[in-house]
Amino acid sequence: MEIKGITSRDIWQAKKRISSYITRTPLVYSPALSEMTGANIYLKLENLQAIGAFKVRGAANKILSLSPEERAKGVSTFSTGNHGMAVAHIANRLGVKAIVCMSNHVPENKVKAISRWNPVIKQDWESQDDAGKYCYELEKKEGIKVIPPFDDKEIICGQGTMSLEIVEDLPEIDTAIVPLSGGGLISGVTLGLKLTVPDVKVIGVCMERGAAMIESLKAGHPVEIPEEPTLADSLLGGIGLDNKYTFDIVKDYVDEKIQVSEEEISKGMAYVMENHKVIAEGASCVGIAYALRKGVIKPGSNVAIVVTGNGVGMDIVKRIVDENY
Amino acid sequence: MEIKGITSRDIWQAKKRISSYITRTPLVYSPALSEMTGANIYLKLENLQAIGAFKVRGAANKILSLSPEERAKGVSTFSTGNHGMAVAHIANRLGVKAIVCMSNHVPENKVKAISRWNPVIKQDWESQDDAGKYCYELEKKEGIKVIPPFDDKEIICGQGTMSLEIVEDLPEIDTAIVPLSGGGLISGVTLGLKLTVPDVKVIGVCMERGAAMIESLKAGHPVEIPEEPTLADSLLGGIGLDNKYTFDIVKDYVDEKIQVSEEEISKGMAYVMENHKVIAEGASCVGIAYALRKGVIKPGSNVAIVVTGNGVGMDIVKRIVDENY
Repeated sequence: MEIKGITSRDIWQAKKRISSYITRTPLVYSPALSEMTGANIYLKLENLQAIGAFKVRGAANKILSLSPEERAKGVSTFSTGNHGMAVAHIANRLGVKAIVCMSNHVPENKVKAISRWNPVIKQDWESQDDAGKYCYELEKKEGIKVIPPFDDKEIICGQGTMSLEIVEDLPEIDTAIVPLSGGGLISGVTLGLKLTVPDVKVIGVCMERGAAMIESLKAGHPVEIPEEPTLADSLLGGIGLDNKYTFDIVKDYVDEKIQVSEEEISKGMAYVMENHKVIAEGASCVGIAYALRKGVIKPGSNVAIVVTGNGVGMDIVKRIVDENY
Repeated sequence: MEIKGITSRDIWQAKKRISSYITRTPLVYSPALSEMTGANIYLKLENLQAIGAFKVRGAANKILSLSPEERAKGVSTFSTGNHGMAVAHIANRLGVKAIVCMSNHVPENKVKAISRWNPVIKQDWESQDDAGKYCYELEKKEGIKVIPPFDDKEIICGQGTMSLEIVEDLPEIDTAIVPLSGGGLISGVTLGLKLTVPDVKVIGVCMERGAAMIESLKAGHPVEIPEEPTLADSLLGGIGLDNKYTFDIVKDYVDEKIQVSEEEISKGMAYVMENHKVIAEGASCVGIAYALRKGVIKPGSNVAIVVTGNGVGMDIVKRIVDENY
């Protein structure tokens, strides 16, 4: 069976390809969530990857899938968030040159966070869009491949590798709860699960404001919407008007799409902090926020919730601690 | 080769025995500590076990080593901390009856934390010593085995299993930094490492005040010392005047024994919180506190630091956050 040209083998191959470049993260039991719901709830802690987020899986699979000639030319990205860090980190491990292009307005702390992984940083544009255009010019002129953030077969298969680890650790899984943004993560996890253990239900969760995938699904095609401030800022961003993979996969294979409020996200962050002593970013906690809603988790079910990253400043940690304790 | 009657095979057997009852924890790269020291530093995150601490390893190995007849009678413990939780949790998973005996003065929150794992709680004594005596009477009269906290071959081998995982993840390891208390953990990790990759240096770290093992080593034999308040309260407690294993193993095989101040422990807690977004208890952070000392980590070395548990209240988390941010 194949979905949008992706088979189970593609994800297994990705798993083998990236295994020595990523952390094999644990699926930890949540006594507190399990007691509250009467289900068996586990957290897949992707915040434990070296860059603090799952994005290394997709970046590693993409870069390792390039030909030796392509790798010799280097790669580029114009993401200044977790995907940018993932590309810089994996390229650094592989001795591949990574060029990260960004606008002059990217704040110092973000530039510093990416600099840790020794990329070539070019900061020469007034907007991030212009930085992106430059990357594609470089690809056209010099063959330096742009590593796309989500709507790409190898990226999707790379993110999907975590679902094979989940099945290995919890073969009785019946429900997966996964953050929903551009759809690279949830597409990979959904395909990995449904091509392996087809009866698993996948629930995608995102914030209420600025949820591009949700608005696109409502419209029946990809649409652009304005970004709005949210605790789950890593879930912001468009899905691409010429979306090739993730729009259809999310539409056809993700069983439920849910939105949670800012207050619920904040409670989710406090909950995982108190009960697991793990500090996760807002985007990471949308699944926990959903599971905390009364009555949504079926008693007796076996649930894996993906916790995606830890990119949150101590100022927000302090705010969450002060608001809740 | 054997040390105190323990061989490499004993620890490998423990690994096989407990594998489906514990979390295979990740060894995560620490970009921040690595940059600061010029070494490659990794954290073994035992705080991710279901009870929030490594103690499940020893408890699982001990209980699974009992004969079917012994298991049918149940087990007991008089620990009200991580070891007590570990015994209750593993017994619960195995359908073995666990009796936890405690004094009337054990605070409500500790009783509640252990109750989560459904043991039989007996709270009928004026002191923890009397509760302990009752456990040993039960063992003598009814054959209900007391599960000892650290000075026991199976407990040591159980804790030691984490060192085999460390070698699997970081075969180039040359230095291990491990919290030091009664010595069950560090004995297991030291034997596991030195019987597998003998040239690894092991550094034991504990707090300045109330460090029973350090005082015993100075005296040349086990001694009792008064307990004093410390952020690393899980490291308090005596080593047993009739110590059979851990005193000698720590004396002869742990290469360095280090004490860190309360201020250093607090800084260690803040450091792992800010840089790894992991909240670890004070006892867990003594190794990080040591690594933060200028000049103690050799540039270019490959170091694993064991982070043992997350048993810290949100009141202390709030204090650390407020003091540091």
